[in-house]
Amino acid sequence: MPHTPIKLSRLAQYLPIVGWLQTYRRQDINDDVFAGVITAILLVPQGIAYAILAGLPPQLGLYASILPPVAYAVLGTSRTLSVGPVSIAAIMIAGVLTTTEVSALGDPVQSALILSAECGVMMLLMAVLRLGGLVNFISHPVLAGFTSGAALLIIGSQLPQLVGLKAPSCGVELDCYSRYLSGIDPATSLISLASLVLLLLFGKPITSLLKKTGATLSLVTAVSKCGPLLVVILATLAVIRFNLAAQQVAVVGNVPAGFPELGLAFIDLKKIELLLPYAAFIALIAYVESVAIAKVTANLRGQKIIPNQELIALGVANLAAAVSGGMPVAGGFSRTMVNFSAGARTQMAMLIAAGFLGLAVIFFSPWFADIPKSALSAIILVAVFRLVRIKHIFHTWNYDRADGMAEAVTLLGVLILGIEEGIALGILLTIASHLRKTSHPHIAIVGRVPDTEHYRNIKRHSVETWHHLLLVRIDESITFANISFIEDYLDAELRRRPDTRHIVLIFTSVSDIDTTALEALELFNQSLQASGKTLNVAEAKGPVLDKLQKTDFIEQLKPGKVFFRTEDAVKSLG
Amino acid sequence: MPHTPIKLSRLAQYLPIVGWLQTYRRQDINDDVFAGVITAILLVPQGIAYAILAGLPPQLGLYASILPPVAYAVLGTSRTLSVGPVSIAAIMIAGVLTTTEVSALGDPVQSALILSAECGVMMLLMAVLRLGGLVNFISHPVLAGFTSGAALLIIGSQLPQLVGLKAPSCGVELDCYSRYLSGIDPATSLISLASLVLLLLFGKPITSLLKKTGATLSLVTAVSKCGPLLVVILATLAVIRFNLAAQQVAVVGNVPAGFPELGLAFIDLKKIELLLPYAAFIALIAYVESVAIAKVTANLRGQKIIPNQELIALGVANLAAAVSGGMPVAGGFSRTMVNFSAGARTQMAMLIAAGFLGLAVIFFSPWFADIPKSALSAIILVAVFRLVRIKHIFHTWNYDRADGMAEAVTLLGVLILGIEEGIALGILLTIASHLRKTSHPHIAIVGRVPDTEHYRNIKRHSVETWHHLLLVRIDESITFANISFIEDYLDAELRRRPDTRHIVLIFTSVSDIDTTALEALELFNQSLQASGKTLNVAEAKGPVLDKLQKTDFIEQLKPGKVFFRTEDAVKSLG
Repeated sequence: MPHTPIKLSRLAQYLPIVGWLQTYRRQDINDDVFAGVITAILLVPQGIAYAILAGLPPQLGLYASILPPVAYAVLGTSRTLSVGPVSIAAIMIAGVLTTTEVSALGDPVQSALILSAECGVMMLLMAVLRLGGLVNFISHPVLAGFTSGAALLIIGSQLPQLVGLKAPSCGVELDCYSRYLSGIDPATSLISLASLVLLLLFGKPITSLLKKTGATLSLVTAVSKCGPLLVVILATLAVIRFNLAAQQVAVVGNVPAGFPELGLAFIDLKKIELLLPYAAFIALIAYVESVAIAKVTANLRGQKIIPNQELIALGVANLAAAVSGGMPVAGGFSRTMVNFSAGARTQMAMLIAAGFLGLAVIFFSPWFADIPKSALSAIILVAVFRLVRIKHIFHTWNYDRADGMAEAVTLLGVLILGIEEGIALGILLTIASHLRKTSHPHIAIVGRVPDTEHYRNIKRHSVETWHHLLLVRIDESITFANISFIEDYLDAELRRRPDTRHIVLIFTSVSDIDTTALEALELFNQSLQASGKTLNVAEAKGPVLDKLQKTDFIEQLKPGKVFFRTEDAVKSLG
Repeated sequence: MPHTPIKLSRLAQYLPIVGWLQTYRRQDINDDVFAGVITAILLVPQGIAYAILAGLPPQLGLYASILPPVAYAVLGTSRTLSVGPVSIAAIMIAGVLTTTEVSALGDPVQSALILSAECGVMMLLMAVLRLGGLVNFISHPVLAGFTSGAALLIIGSQLPQLVGLKAPSCGVELDCYSRYLSGIDPATSLISLASLVLLLLFGKPITSLLKKTGATLSLVTAVSKCGPLLVVILATLAVIRFNLAAQQVAVVGNVPAGFPELGLAFIDLKKIELLLPYAAFIALIAYVESVAIAKVTANLRGQKIIPNQELIALGVANLAAAVSGGMPVAGGFSRTMVNFSAGARTQMAMLIAAGFLGLAVIFFSPWFADIPKSALSAIILVAVFRLVRIKHIFHTWNYDRADGMAEAVTLLGVLILGIEEGIALGILLTIASHLRKTSHPHIAIVGRVPDTEHYRNIKRHSVETWHHLLLVRIDESITFANISFIEDYLDAELRRRPDTRHIVLIFTSVSDIDTTALEALELFNQSLQASGKTLNVAEAKGPVLDKLQKTDFIEQLKPGKVFFRTEDAVKSLG
């Protein structure tokens, strides 16, 4: 079959797995197995933790870590993105489930599965409409402010759980707070404290210690990523040994054993309608986050992400989550970083991790019941803490004021107004400031560089100019957004040079003139003619001239003219 | 007092009347008196008609034609703009007064005065905040579509009145319509028909006839503008002669005699709050319309409009309307055109017209009671008919697809969704399509013009190129809105030229690089380095270099470099 390679490469466009399997090497499998196991070790506690963070039973996080990454592995263009439950989507889901309308309809599990399905459909719809580019209008500063704000909300939601309290319902009554704080549970607090200390030890301290002892890099990586699992195991053993679950310490509780059942039993029209706008926001954020992380790792290895294919892969992954009883998924920051730094070469690593998760839910589910929630809170806290980047705002502000402002406003918006409102505010702010910027185009009065046919800005070069002739180069397309600025500029220059008899607009950088701009130029020409001056055009590009020739603008300019080159205009009018 | 001229010119900045009075000539007064009288003749029937169109007693239109134009004459920068009640604001007011919330509070006169006051305050606030430029984001096509749509709504609202019916309340029941149409009043219809015929005769036919008989231009102008007044006089005489008011023919009814009383009795906090958003929209439209018309006439005479001063003048005019019992005002299209074509030199014409209106309400009010509403409807119909410019949409479409689409959508939006919703839709659409356009900047691969140091687009010029060197000129500032397009472009070019070892980005037209773009360029550089290529920069402007030097971007580029000129880059890398 001589055509096979061609067929395969076309197939690889739709199923990227075909692409990387074709070039899969022996060394790859070793790396991928290692990375897959390490990532799976992180995914068990994180899956349970993020489900609880979202206000859902633990299995929704575990199930979301099995089929969805498999779907992504087949369809996604990133070799190392790890798809599953993520912290920011989890806090958004928690927000949705606790709104009065949604909680009134009961059954949060059903609501979560509907959100997964809707996120999937939304992403596929965006892919079909080729709207992947829309997310370019979420600027990095807005995304950074959003991430910091959401991470702070997550931290705020975990603090009470670390000491065995529910979220406080006190307003401004100080008495209430002292009563509230008296409910702190010592055993829970002790588990949290020990977990935090252990997790922090498993960061830099253990890495540098191991490196000093001369351990291999893969051993260092493997050990340093085992912190969360070790914390869960030790904390669970403590709960069992001292029978803490019977006392004040909150535990995960029963997790159904076995592989999730597949089905569409969650469908409910009323809920579907109610949840749709929330799902749209979650889908948008999940997509933006995933692509951002995928791009970072792909660039480090000189690989390429195709945004529209990512929409398809993430969409199918979310549908897979819905039918297999999982919460909505995205590409997660910490899990992808673990996978990448553990040396994953391809999505084979995630297939292996998913296999381990599948085995875990089949064989180890009974073991999950006694995991103390406070240990999971400690894991969440350490995972999201690095997402809070307040300093980054100053860094951005220092580079670009408008961007720094957008980042700060988005962060505060998320904290004060809410997650969706905060990011919407940030997006509006960037678009408004972008419009403001594009409405002030660069304009230069130019003159001729002596003994040449080149024309340059009179402010930056010593050039020849002519008394009755004003040569103006407009460095952007002329549209409704900037025509008023351009008019004001020309008026001011004309007042400053009352002897001007001919104005030549140099259109080298003008790729378009819209209707508003054309009408304003017509009026401007009329007012020039009324005072005995002429308006001329030079260096207009083909498409611009074609457009102008459809109107009688060139006719109206007379005795003003359209010149091919600036030089021609100067020869004729100078 | 030697300082007087200087003081006067500074005063003229705030009180433009001081400016034109200083240079006022003898000939001007003749022209202005003539134009003022002609305009006043139009203003009496139009003032009454637009008040009735807005669902208000006739005197609100008359009062709005006295003090407000005086305020504008003192403060406005247009020499010929005629300020008073206008048709489009009238239909917007009618819409507000008939909403359930507003009509529930009763007393439409009070509501109208509050709207006037709020429009005035809004405009002054916009002036203080220097927001005059915001209206640049209403593009001409959106404004044209809006005007056509509003004019069609006005025509639709007048058709039943022409035949003595109220607006139909039938849905899809055909029976209802036949019952409804059986209510047509023959006398009313006859008055309308006669009025329409007379008004149409006073257009082109009478002008050409008078010109043929060799009448002077001012006589032709005077006669042709008298149509509306003549229609009103004849129709009123017919009503009185045949006692039609006692029968089916609807008449204007009692108009209080005397000059309006000044006062603030209309203030009511609850209504003020309720009406505020509507007033904001009316103020916006009134301002945009006024400035657009003022600009057209000013350009024809080589004069200058100052948008911020217009906000002040129109704001004070609306406050004057509120305290003197008038409806909201703006610069009207037909009345300004009458004033202009009757030869008005300065706002003196409007002061004279306002004087006539003042005399009219003092001495002629009893005569207004028997004016038949159908004659006024005919006057409105003829006045707004020319505002409907359906053909203009095709004209716009032919010049610029996106603009034609925006115009059509705005028109349909106004007709189907409502006035405010329609224009909001149009504005959103133009901003979205503007963002789309700016996200596709012009980029050129350049090469050296042989034996020079000039670099030009390889597609348009025969230039030298180098195998391992890719010179890319980006013709716009690099921002979140276009960085993704730029990356895709560079990736595609690199795939097409696999031998490339060095990329030089030429920043001649780049005036800014925002945070998102910087971070994306950093990632792009990383992926280039991963495949053994370098990223370089040339011709960066001072401010851009300053910004980049605040970061470690230039450090990251190494071994890539920042070159002063493209020539330097070619010498070093070529």
